[in-house]
Parts: sequence; C-alpha cells; structure tokens
Amino acid sequence: MDGNKGKAYLIAYSLAVKPILDNFLQKEIELKSDIGPIGTGLLESYKDMVSLGKGLRGALLELSYRLCGGSDLEEIRRVSTFVELYHSAILIHDDFMDRDPFRRGVETIHKKYSHIGEQMGVPISSDHYGNSLAVCIGDTGLYLCWKMLLSGKFPAENILKAGMIFSDFGARLGLGQALDMSITGIKEIEEQDVLKVIWIKSGEYTTYLPMVLGAALAGNMDELRLKAIIDYSRCLGWAFHIQDDILGLYAEETELGKPVGSDLREGKNTLLQGYLRKHGNASQLEFQKNILGKQNITVDEVTTMKDMLKEVGAYQHVLNMGWKYVEEGIAYTKQITSDKELQEILESLLYFMMERTK
Amino acid sequence: MDGNKGKAYLIAYSLAVKPILDNFLQKEIELKSDIGPIGTGLLESYKDMVSLGKGLRGALLELSYRLCGGSDLEEIRRVSTFVELYHSAILIHDDFMDRDPFRRGVETIHKKYSHIGEQMGVPISSDHYGNSLAVCIGDTGLYLCWKMLLSGKFPAENILKAGMIFSDFGARLGLGQALDMSITGIKEIEEQDVLKVIWIKSGEYTTYLPMVLGAALAGNMDELRLKAIIDYSRCLGWAFHIQDDILGLYAEETELGKPVGSDLREGKNTLLQGYLRKHGNASQLEFQKNILGKQNITVDEVTTMKDMLKEVGAYQHVLNMGWKYVEEGIAYTKQITSDKELQEILESLLYFMMERTK
Repeated sequence: MDGNKGKAYLIAYSLAVKPILDNFLQKEIELKSDIGPIGTGLLESYKDMVSLGKGLRGALLELSYRLCGGSDLEEIRRVSTFVELYHSAILIHDDFMDRDPFRRGVETIHKKYSHIGEQMGVPISSDHYGNSLAVCIGDTGLYLCWKMLLSGKFPAENILKAGMIFSDFGARLGLGQALDMSITGIKEIEEQDVLKVIWIKSGEYTTYLPMVLGAALAGNMDELRLKAIIDYSRCLGWAFHIQDDILGLYAEETELGKPVGSDLREGKNTLLQGYLRKHGNASQLEFQKNILGKQNITVDEVTTMKDMLKEVGAYQHVLNMGWKYVEEGIAYTKQITSDKELQEILESLLYFMMERTK
Repeated sequence: MDGNKGKAYLIAYSLAVKPILDNFLQKEIELKSDIGPIGTGLLESYKDMVSLGKGLRGALLELSYRLCGGSDLEEIRRVSTFVELYHSAILIHDDFMDRDPFRRGVETIHKKYSHIGEQMGVPISSDHYGNSLAVCIGDTGLYLCWKMLLSGKFPAENILKAGMIFSDFGARLGLGQALDMSITGIKEIEEQDVLKVIWIKSGEYTTYLPMVLGAALAGNMDELRLKAIIDYSRCLGWAFHIQDDILGLYAEETELGKPVGSDLREGKNTLLQGYLRKHGNASQLEFQKNILGKQNITVDEVTTMKDMLKEVGAYQHVLNMGWKYVEEGIAYTKQITSDKELQEILESLLYFMMERTK
C-alpha cells in the first residue's frame, strides 16, 4: 500500500469542488456588490485563496458521510465545501497573527492590503490597515461558511446537529490559537501545552472535525463506528501534523507555497525542536536558543538547523512517530467499514499524509 | 410620549438576561478548561464584556418575536442573547481595528492582553500579541453565539431561516467594517460611502437584523407586517446612529464608557463632520482638516470642535435629522401591531434613542 489512492481521491475531490466554490463565491460577490469595490476586492482575494486549497477537510467530510451511510452524494459534495470556506477564513486570521508574507504561493491578504492601504494613502499605518482588512474578510469567511452549511438539503435535525458541533469547535479553535500564540517563542514551556495546541490546531481541526461533521450530516452517529472514525481521525491528524512539521523545514519552498523555516523565525515549539531540546548537547542547545524566534534568520542557519536535527536523531524520531500513527490508523479502517474500496482509500490516505511533499 | 417606557423595557431585558449569559459563559469556561489558563482568562474577559452590554439588540429581537406572534417567551428570552454574544465579539474586533483603549468603562481586550503579553515576556511585540489574542477571543465569540442560536427549542425550519439571515448579515458586516476602515481619515470621500457604512454598521446591524431575526424565529414572516417592521427598524437605526454620533463628542466621558473625541482622533466621517465640510468657512475647514485623524488631540481642540459644530449649525441639523426619524418611525408602529402596550413600547424606544445620554 502507498499514498497514491488517497492522493488521487483528494485530487478528484478538489477538482470537483472548485467550480462549486467559485460559483458560490461569485454569487456572493454579486449579492454584496452594493458595498462597492473594497468589498468586492476582498471577496475576490478570498475566492482566490479558497480556490488554491487542497480540499483535505472537505474530502474527509464527504468520505465520512459516505462511510456513515449517507446517500445524497451530490448534495454532500456541495455542502462539504463549507469546511473549505471555513479553513481559508481561519488561515487569513492565522497569517496575520504569524506575520507570514505568503501562503499557497501567493501573497497573504494582510500583506496585500498593507500595500493597497499605502497606495490609497490611508492615514493609519499601512500595516495596521492590512491587518484590519485581513481580520474583516476573515470574519466574512467565518460567516459565509455557515450559509453554505445551513443551505444543505439534509434533514433539518442533521444540519442543526452538525451546526452545534461546528460552532463548539470554532469556539475552541480560537482559544487553541491563543494558546499557540502564548507559548510560541517562550523558552520554558510545558510539553502538554505543545501537544494540546498540536491536537486542537492539526488533529481536531483537520481530521476529527470534518469526519464527525460528515457523520452528523449523514444522521448516523452510531456509537461504535463513530468511535472507530474518531480513533482513525486522531491517527490521520497526527500523521498530518508530523509531516507538516517536517515539511516546514525540509520541503522545497516553491513546492510548499509558504516560507521554509518560518517555524524557526516564529519560534514555534515543533516536535522536532522538542526532541532537540531534550537530547541536544550544550552547544546545540545554545544554537537552538539563538535561532528560535530570530527574525532575520539566514539560509545557512536554516541549513545548519536541518543538519543538526538529523544528527541528533530528531528527524528520524519524529518520522518514526508519524509512521507509527499510520500503522495504528490502519487497524481502525476495518472497524469503520466492510467496503473494501473505502477501506483502501482510508488506508492510503494515512500513507499519503506521510508521503506528501507539500 | 418620551423615552421612559422604552428605557425601562431595555433595562428590564438587560437585567433578566444577565444570569442567562453568565450561566452560559460559565459553562463554556468549564467545558473548555482543558485548554488551560490562557483560554479561561480570555473567556472570563469576554464574559465580563458581555455582561456590561446594554442589551439593545437582544431586546429588539425578543420584541419583534412577540410582535410576530411568537409564544415561547421564556425560550426567546434565552435564545435572543445570541445577538448579544455576537455583538461583544464584533466589538472586540472593532476595538482592535480602531485602537480604542477602553470600552464600556473598562480596558479593551487588545490593550489588556498587550500588558499581559509584556508580563509574560512573549518574544513578539506586546501590541501584536494583544491584537492577536483579541482576534482569537473575538473569533471564539463569533462561534459561541451560534451555539446559543442553534440550541433554541423552536421549529428547526425557523432556526435554519434565522441562521441563513444571520450568516448572510455577518458576512456583510465584515465588508462594511472594511469599507469603514478604508474611508476613515480619507479627505476626499463619497457621501454615499459614508451613508452605506452607517447603514450597515448601525442601522442594519443594531435594529434591522435583530428584528428580522425575531420574525424568523417566530416563524411568521408575513410580508406586510415585516415590511412595517423593517421600515420602523430603519428609523430606529438612524435615530440610534445619529445620537451615537452626537454622544461621541458631546457626552460625558465617564458616562459614555469610551473616550469622547475618539471619532476625531480616528478621523471618522460622522454626519456632524460631513455638515461642517459642506457649510464651514475657510478657517473652519482648515481647522477640521488639521484635527481629523490627529492622534494627540487635546481637550481644548475637542472643545473648539464642539463649539464650531454648534456655531455652523451642524449640531442642530443632525439633531433635527434624528427627530425626523423618530416622527417617521412612529407612523409605522400602528402598522406593526394593534396591541396598544406594544405600540407604546415601540414609540417610546424611538424617543429613547434620541434621549439617551450613553
């Protein structure tokens, strides 16, 4: 088994929902054209960003709906896109907080609007203008996704159930992000806080939430299967996060679509850094201390860090952790479904999480 | 007629919902305690802010539900608080964008957390930390309010209808705020943009939205009455906004709970300034140009501006506009209901919008 089937599944989903998302947002641009060019421009930027998404969350929602016996495949495909709309909105707020200059290969919205503000001659600092407009369009996206969810032609109680789960998670994610902002770059941190942030921001958000939402929309929250789905999604989420940590340093920047090494610049407490902190020698720890959170980090310093993490065994250790989750996840696939085809997709998705290069 | 009955109605509502909101948020604090002290602290700050709200939007939602024949008065009282939860979340984002240091008499959340960040020794600038944490807890509030709405024991189709209206408006408001940020402090602005911002941010948001939501939850969107409610809410919204403009300069700061003159400092295009721009003489226009957007504005300059606006007739003109809306609004009350008591409340609320001192 490898990740090819899972990858193909995600690509097929992503291609299929692109026109759905484009049409939905194009209609919103028309509906809200009375607000004028500023509103239209922001919605266009949001639409561009949404259309560059990989579709992982929406695809998992749709898959879980199928696994739970949902039958309206056309409607779930349309409605599942609400988690994609949500995800892009969250990224816009995150990028402002992390001060990232680009994402998905294009300039981030807060950066783009700081330049626009400069051209417009706004009297406030153009950075503050850019940040503010990013928060505005993020807020818009956080509400547009609800419109997509609530429009679903599923039994009303299923939509309300999904909505309750979604609203509760959305509230949690804000707090998880606040915790992340609070421990990033802090030298003395509790490992449990690091794991908590990772779980909320990667696992719970990327895999657990969409899969539980899919079950809710199918109206089938059969306890045993749901438990297996949750266990599976936990493994998938950890594998996803671990590869994210690794790619954040070891990927090709052009492929990744965001700056390699920005985790270092922001002083993020990644699993790799956690291992180094525990097993590094004095001079390695000194280097780590100087690099984490360094704004003007050089390409050479990033390379030294990459080599050091391999030398100390952090790279291999974290990689092994990821593959352990793949193995554990595979065990749950048979509890979720007896359909061989769906089992294979679930299994291959686990592999793909670790095999992906972006 | 005067505003006393309307004022009493709002106070009674506000007192009645305080324990409902407190209990709801206390339960959220417990439910999300696994995130740790950062999450708990943010939810506490949010809870404090919510409990200082005037309850205008929730009261209008409840009133409209009654006007539309809704019968579960206990449940609508509980659920109507979702617009209060929403409002506080929006204010947190607005305060960050407007860089206001206090609100409702207490320090704003982005300010409070910039001090906390300093104490914690976060490696990013404490301002950026404060701004980010304000956006985080704002996002949390923007999702908690949905939990309250969706939990309502009303027919599911009424909740879905209300949810569709709410999500669409939430998406609009983000764009309206972006437009506001884009025209604030700009000298050459289109009057229609100013009116658009006022309508979205004051009228549509404060009066129209809650009243239409109340009708939706009552499940009675009878066209004729709804039209009258919308017309009434437009008048109420304008009266509300006009008095807000006036109080922003002429209120007592201790009573207002936020800085008097901050509209000047931020260079807001208020109705008062719009009139001055049209009717001021050369030296007045020169003064206006120097004052609008001036960060370190003095108390004397605020006083000069207040006198000038009275001298040029702006104050009286805007005041008259407000009272014209009161008059127009009264005409709709009889189309909305034949219940004398409810008619009087509607009428008195119009007066109260103009009579209030905070």
